[in-house]
Amino acid sequence: MTNKNLEVCLTPALLPLYDVENSIVVIIDIFRATSSICYGIENGAAGIIPVSHVEECAAYRPTFPDYLLAAERDGAVVAGFDFGNSPFSYTADKVDGKTIVLTTTNGTHALQLSIKAKKIVIGAFLNLTALCNWLKEQDSHLLLVCAGWKNKFNLEDTLFAGAVVSQLQGEGYKLDDAGIAAFDLFEAGKNNLGEYLKKTSHSERLKELGIEKDIAFCLNVDITTAIPILDGDRLVKLA
Amino acid sequence: MTNKNLEVCLTPALLPLYDVENSIVVIIDIFRATSSICYGIENGAAGIIPVSHVEECAAYRPTFPDYLLAAERDGAVVAGFDFGNSPFSYTADKVDGKTIVLTTTNGTHALQLSIKAKKIVIGAFLNLTALCNWLKEQDSHLLLVCAGWKNKFNLEDTLFAGAVVSQLQGEGYKLDDAGIAAFDLFEAGKNNLGEYLKKTSHSERLKELGIEKDIAFCLNVDITTAIPILDGDRLVKLA
Repeated sequence: MTNKNLEVCLTPALLPLYDVENSIVVIIDIFRATSSICYGIENGAAGIIPVSHVEECAAYRPTFPDYLLAAERDGAVVAGFDFGNSPFSYTADKVDGKTIVLTTTNGTHALQLSIKAKKIVIGAFLNLTALCNWLKEQDSHLLLVCAGWKNKFNLEDTLFAGAVVSQLQGEGYKLDDAGIAAFDLFEAGKNNLGEYLKKTSHSERLKELGIEKDIAFCLNVDITTAIPILDGDRLVKLA
Repeated sequence: MTNKNLEVCLTPALLPLYDVENSIVVIIDIFRATSSICYGIENGAAGIIPVSHVEECAAYRPTFPDYLLAAERDGAVVAGFDFGNSPFSYTADKVDGKTIVLTTTNGTHALQLSIKAKKIVIGAFLNLTALCNWLKEQDSHLLLVCAGWKNKFNLEDTLFAGAVVSQLQGEGYKLDDAGIAAFDLFEAGKNNLGEYLKKTSHSERLKELGIEKDIAFCLNVDITTAIPILDGDRLVKLA
């Protein structure tokens, strides 16, 4: 395939502008959904079922009492659920062999809107290089979808998109303006991601939620190698 | 007014997410609509009437035969119109004392979608400092609206937004993530805007259209001082 595109969709609200159906889509929600998904799949979760609504998540309880139900809204665990999207809820002792149903403010929303993609995989700093090595082997247009915050642009997801662009340099992709911007922002922040992201408003908000440890964890680079991929209704480990 | 927001809307498609009604909006379409509007108003145009559709523009002909009609689509002058949005069509000998009706692919679209704003002003590198000096005197939320390209993100409009953010630093605004990104991208490109923007796909496209002179002209900083402001149905020189 020649003239492969590498595009960055800066928020899910812009997805209708892209050729999702002919692209491999990477879903990016660094704080914290896609970081936790990568960590959970790495730690042996059998599958993670992304759903859009809290009610859909709750509906699994009677039929699948052994599933773990995870629901996050506005950064907090929804009352009545096993957990939300803190990566520390996705350790091996909690998720190994388990199926998880997950709904989050932004990440699962972005995934559902991308559902017609050729393939959907999950990216985070945790699995950056493993993901990029796999992407390099694919002969396809690539679309990096930043989950953002309630359809607005956010810096952490864009920085990660820039990190992917950086690793895919020299692979002959045609980059759009958003990809160029993401790359340059990653270049500006890469030497200290945590420090760079401290100036964002989102970071302030997350700090108020008392999840600074989560944030620091989500900025670990290459501590996992599993690539979660959508297979039917669930994210599983790419074989 | 405390806690004034300075936000950057990266494409018109994201406008529904912002509190347009309580903001002064700056419309940005560097290549070339807002550059040409700034230049035209500087050069004595009595008013520039922005309209969304080519048909609306044409409809002025019978009633107002002395108006200049300008229509651009996909970077080219629409057949049958006096001119499009090349800044060289907005020199004093052509526009002094004239009223112009203008429709463009992106700029007038962004303006129409912002129509409920407290005030709408026009920004370009041409009037950067004059615009920013005026913005500093306003006690209001500010929303910088990048016209983009067919609702997608583009780099040149975002860089200009970053230039505005740069000049408004220290004025106590609360910046959103898009504003932070715009600022950092401007920092990356400011020493040679033309060189920086050469890597964009848009720049490639404009080059094919043979309008490199226009592009270079639109990157002149502070060669005008007029601030076009929407007054009723038309943009006029801010008194």
